[in-house]
Amino acid sequence: MTNPVDVGYLSGFLGGDTYLILGPGLGAKRCVLVSDGRYDEELNPARSFGTVILRKKGLLETVADVCRDHGVGKLAIQAEHMSVADASALRAAVVGAVEVFETSKLVEKLRVIKDAHECDLIEKAIRLQEAAMKAVMPKIQPGRTELEIAADLESEMKYRGSSHSWFAPIVGVGANAALPHYRPGSAKVRKNEIVLIDWGSTWQGYGGDMTRTFAVGAWPAKMREVYEVVRAAQEAAAAALAPGKSTHEVDRVARDIITRAGYGAEFNHGLGHGLGMSKEPPYLNPLYPPIPLEVGHVCTIEPGIYLPGVGGVRIEDQYVLTAKGATNFCKMPKTLAFSTL
Amino acid sequence: MTNPVDVGYLSGFLGGDTYLILGPGLGAKRCVLVSDGRYDEELNPARSFGTVILRKKGLLETVADVCRDHGVGKLAIQAEHMSVADASALRAAVVGAVEVFETSKLVEKLRVIKDAHECDLIEKAIRLQEAAMKAVMPKIQPGRTELEIAADLESEMKYRGSSHSWFAPIVGVGANAALPHYRPGSAKVRKNEIVLIDWGSTWQGYGGDMTRTFAVGAWPAKMREVYEVVRAAQEAAAAALAPGKSTHEVDRVARDIITRAGYGAEFNHGLGHGLGMSKEPPYLNPLYPPIPLEVGHVCTIEPGIYLPGVGGVRIEDQYVLTAKGATNFCKMPKTLAFSTL
Repeated sequence: MTNPVDVGYLSGFLGGDTYLILGPGLGAKRCVLVSDGRYDEELNPARSFGTVILRKKGLLETVADVCRDHGVGKLAIQAEHMSVADASALRAAVVGAVEVFETSKLVEKLRVIKDAHECDLIEKAIRLQEAAMKAVMPKIQPGRTELEIAADLESEMKYRGSSHSWFAPIVGVGANAALPHYRPGSAKVRKNEIVLIDWGSTWQGYGGDMTRTFAVGAWPAKMREVYEVVRAAQEAAAAALAPGKSTHEVDRVARDIITRAGYGAEFNHGLGHGLGMSKEPPYLNPLYPPIPLEVGHVCTIEPGIYLPGVGGVRIEDQYVLTAKGATNFCKMPKTLAFSTL
Repeated sequence: MTNPVDVGYLSGFLGGDTYLILGPGLGAKRCVLVSDGRYDEELNPARSFGTVILRKKGLLETVADVCRDHGVGKLAIQAEHMSVADASALRAAVVGAVEVFETSKLVEKLRVIKDAHECDLIEKAIRLQEAAMKAVMPKIQPGRTELEIAADLESEMKYRGSSHSWFAPIVGVGANAALPHYRPGSAKVRKNEIVLIDWGSTWQGYGGDMTRTFAVGAWPAKMREVYEVVRAAQEAAAAALAPGKSTHEVDRVARDIITRAGYGAEFNHGLGHGLGMSKEPPYLNPLYPPIPLEVGHVCTIEPGIYLPGVGGVRIEDQYVLTAKGATNFCKMPKTLAFSTL
């Protein structure tokens, strides 16, 4: 395994720069972690899981040595997580001794179903990022720039133990909120304008992902109208989450509400996506093949309406599929009354 | 080109998720950028450089279409920057029409030599991160945690326009400073103890990288002794920088001083590395093959001494090689008197 997320998922070691070899013939633990001296102490908990080798040469050269030492005959690589150059180097290093073949998303298929412990970690990430937002909201005042708000949010999350932002926060003021993947800049918050904030934290490798759209003071009339449509779509789609339902079916619940309100073309992205240790299935998105939702899937529901040059609204919560439907990890209100002023 | 750094270097577009195809037969501009609708506005400056295509399907499928439409017969890929899975998908998409072959580090070889404009951007990154550190230093007081200091530094850099940290800041208190790649945790600053901080900013794609070791109050005697050795090594190596010198030769200048002081084994990493839009050659490191330094190389000089369980000192500045020797981008003092209390 060369994907750090998969290595972390299987071994518990989240430090990166570490490959994992699994299989019979690798000693009693059937697992070798190839890492380096930097991580000696951090690797201690993973030593119950596998044999740790602190490499003296390149990662792939050390993997080749392990294969030779243990008489490994076939080695599967992760095709999405090894460069062409590394694959060539690995094949050259084991030539004649080991057959190298490609695999795709084997561990991802395990990761998309979350157990109770994983849900606890996601819950912690969401609590943390909601607390951070609560600390930042009083500072979302006229004159504050998008970049300053993003910086404040990131530091408040880090204060609370988030190892890193799950992604760079999106903070869009006024018309900038109409760009779904906007990157914060020097635009300043203005009174009686909106601010869209999409932010995420990380707790022990697991991500939280939320979006709120606030008014700083009074809501502009058009944005108030749009907000109610997005909120209705968000809540209806969340209520529709259930095992066995197709991802397309849930997307359609939100999309129909937005389309009936006349904004179908202004909801120009998917309804949501899975996440845990990575962005992953299920994709609730008409551009992806439909799959049935399963107990243990974790996903966002995040419809939006974007009016170019005017503004945009997105509301996003994160859910886990249960036997009865879905549980929302997020507690932050999404009422219109939730202004920062 | 699939490496976002190379795409940014050549086209000026730093947004990522964008591939660049260069060559004859691609129209008057001999260049096509394959991107998507999210970046429509941000791509405007790059439109003078190449034809922009906002894709309607996958990135690689669109690349295949461009090749077919323009009768491209041979396509070079970046072996270090394409996954095995993507290379297979690309080969399948163009099968029979285009010969795909691998190249290695062609653009990196251009990037390692910086011109005056690039040096201005690096200078800006360094000014920015020094200003951020100046703002944070009064808060490096007993009781403050490593994570809080890291968070403060990152937000102060972002306030000043750094798009992101060049790398996650290393903040190590006391004995944690003995771990060269330590990640900040909940350890608290203590009076009359040291704090090692390695931090970096980014300005228009170019990185700054510095390290300072501070005493919070008085210096512990051992750390004071070690500090003077590291400082002497750092300054001597910087003075030795000159075009034509070998990377090993400069490393040896610092390593000899540290070894003569009795700490050879406690300086367990290379002396420095190149950086610009990425971490790159020249590597001033005995584990890498020696290369001659050239005018326009930008590199760090960062010797350290690490005493397990006790503490560590590293001092790092960033330089550009000139015809006369080297110019230091960094102005922050490195005297023992530079305490945060």
